[in-house]
Amino acid sequence: MAYATARRSISPAAIAQALARVREEHPLVQCLTNTVTSGFVANVLLAAGASPAMADVPGEAGPFAAASSAVLVNLGTPRADQREAMREAVEAADAAGTPWVLDPVAVGALPGRVELAEELLHSRPAVIRGNASEVRALATSVRAGRGVDSTHSPEEAETDALRLARRTGAVVAVSGPVDLVTNGDRVIRVGGGDALLTAVTGAGCALGGLVAAFAACTPDSLTAAVAASACYAVAAERAAQHADGPGTFAAALLDELYRLNEAEIEHLARVRA
Amino acid sequence: MAYATARRSISPAAIAQALARVREEHPLVQCLTNTVTSGFVANVLLAAGASPAMADVPGEAGPFAAASSAVLVNLGTPRADQREAMREAVEAADAAGTPWVLDPVAVGALPGRVELAEELLHSRPAVIRGNASEVRALATSVRAGRGVDSTHSPEEAETDALRLARRTGAVVAVSGPVDLVTNGDRVIRVGGGDALLTAVTGAGCALGGLVAAFAACTPDSLTAAVAASACYAVAAERAAQHADGPGTFAAALLDELYRLNEAEIEHLARVRA
Amino acid sequence: MAYATARRSISPAAIAQALARVREEHPLVQCLTNTVTSGFVANVLLAAGASPAMADVPGEAGPFAAASSAVLVNLGTPRADQREAMREAVEAADAAGTPWVLDPVAVGALPGRVELAEELLHSRPAVIRGNASEVRALATSVRAGRGVDSTHSPEEAETDALRLARRTGAVVAVSGPVDLVTNGDRVIRVGGGDALLTAVTGAGCALGGLVAAFAACTPDSLTAAVAASACYAVAAERAAQHADGPGTFAAALLDELYRLNEAEIEHLARVRA
Repeated sequence: MAYATARRSISPAAIAQALARVREEHPLVQCLTNTVTSGFVANVLLAAGASPAMADVPGEAGPFAAASSAVLVNLGTPRADQREAMREAVEAADAAGTPWVLDPVAVGALPGRVELAEELLHSRPAVIRGNASEVRALATSVRAGRGVDSTHSPEEAETDALRLARRTGAVVAVSGPVDLVTNGDRVIRVGGGDALLTAVTGAGCALGGLVAAFAACTPDSLTAAVAASACYAVAAERAAQHADGPGTFAAALLDELYRLNEAEIEHLARVRA
Repeated sequence: MAYATARRSISPAAIAQALARVREEHPLVQCLTNTVTSGFVANVLLAAGASPAMADVPGEAGPFAAASSAVLVNLGTPRADQREAMREAVEAADAAGTPWVLDPVAVGALPGRVELAEELLHSRPAVIRGNASEVRALATSVRAGRGVDSTHSPEEAETDALRLARRTGAVVAVSGPVDLVTNGDRVIRVGGGDALLTAVTGAGCALGGLVAAFAACTPDSLTAAVAASACYAVAAERAAQHADGPGTFAAALLDELYRLNEAEIEHLARVRA
Repeated sequence: MAYATARRSISPAAIAQALARVREEHPLVQCLTNTVTSGFVANVLLAAGASPAMADVPGEAGPFAAASSAVLVNLGTPRADQREAMREAVEAADAAGTPWVLDPVAVGALPGRVELAEELLHSRPAVIRGNASEVRALATSVRAGRGVDSTHSPEEAETDALRLARRTGAVVAVSGPVDLVTNGDRVIRVGGGDALLTAVTGAGCALGGLVAAFAACTPDSLTAAVAASACYAVAAERAAQHADGPGTFAAALLDELYRLNEAEIEHLARVRA
């Protein structure tokens, strides 16, 4: 199946502006995420200027989502009580018009996750962010991937991403050496980044959080997702220049996100249609 | 409402001595804390010379509290089973005379947390540590704050802190650009620190853990809380001098806590009544 | 009780080869571990070239274990649902022939943990990794230790380690200033490392993960456990050379694991029978 898509990119100025808004508005980003990487996700959000809050207890999650600027739902370690909190949060977010991001970790690689993801999709996420295997699994409802890592490239996932975007109405962002972001009509590619990102746990999860922060401040979800990916990629590229390995890279990535200059990002972002 | 308070500070020598005791005694600090920052809390405790143990499973939490040197209860992500473990732990701590610290994260900003905090207060914490919004919410039992961040300054919270200290018998420590610590009679202010602390997730939670470690070794809770705040502030100030952003700052903060010299702390602590 | 043991070490070449295999095969290591250190465990595994996946939800844990290259079970914070997932995972691992590692954190220091560990032992772990107090407690089924830290040296634990290895059929690895690894017949000692490891939370847990990764690729569990310990010790020694304290040490440890050269490890590993 082939899809006709429009060739129009996101301007560097729009990306710089999206970053500026996150820093001005300090969006409150509710995170229902896995226990492994939640600290790193929170630190990435703080470094970018957002205000993370890990409210994922049933009874708290719904009211908090209605009052948050954006919500992140990451399926990494979905205990029963967290699944309940996720349902609450996305329903409240949908009802309140709060944009939310689905990060379908290991969907297709573990039993029950496709079903959970499909159920949450009814509450209309603004963005779905995953790796190629996860997007493929969600688009086709078949098992794919191996653990939490991708066994497919983003390019292979283009058709699946378009299909998933059209079916759900969400922007779909596929992370990889080159990120691919689509709203079902336009397909944008974001280059840059660094291979060290794959050696840091939660590097993908944190990008999911960043997309939520940007979506809180930029109504167009395609622009928000592209801008978040572009800022993250630039920060990663710079961090890699003075890292000796994944340990110092993770610290430097936070530093670089914190220091990211809006004028520079306009010149450094590698975005194309 | 105005409170009469006594003007008498904590001496630099007492602060240095409190730090020395933590390093000599390696107090066993049981932490029932949130899943987001527990690793950082543990690392801060280890860097200061304490021995953290995250025993927060029902059935284990009570017996462990009775045998610990101090207990930290942080309400960041209070799942049902952890709430049960918290109740167990504080009752056992109270019965055994083990000092414990309450960190009422996001109390007032999330439904049910005021009630949970009030219930735990019956077991008489040695210290309550929070930001200004949290202390305000707990003192007045009204909703306040936004997410986990404070929307009030510690100065605004002085009256609330005094009220809460007098009502509960606990020392109340309010974190902010200048920390305010009171036992309901005396009010001590601790300067220093660095704004980068607000860009590191768990910086406040870790101070809560540190207060517990100091309370384990220094019977006067006011001295313990002031000394912990002062040591943390000095370490943060030093860490900021060679950090490029929040990532390298977090690592440097651990290094500086580890290297903190008792003679220096006597000269560098900025404490006043 | 004294045990007769054979005096034969593991060759440097075998250690270098074991590391090479981890990097070539990128073993999928399922981790059911505590919430405090899971991020660090994952980062250590990634740095070494393995692919960690924290699948510890009941219903997911069993199927995932059957498909994983190795499984780590760490008793640090065993909530009820995680204990259920652990049972599932080790049974599936045993049935599928997937090697698994038991890290009996604080066994003997907390009620119920000996019983939980004994139950899991029925599913025949390839390796048991703990500190001297934990191995002593498990070998003798008596309370020992204080919190999560050891109050015994590995040398004191030699008899207990041998006894535990012979009773369970598992290789037993005792961490300390000098690690002691035994299969019940041979006893191997691994030197090196650095005292800063004791100031980083999860340093022991991460070694447990590393042992699982090596066990996935090297069928002889004694060689796997010794090689993992030796690589970790060399990386720690190097990291300490350019660390200012535990914060920068933790980052440097990841960097050094990532950069570890197989030719160098052959010269630097300090292993003796």
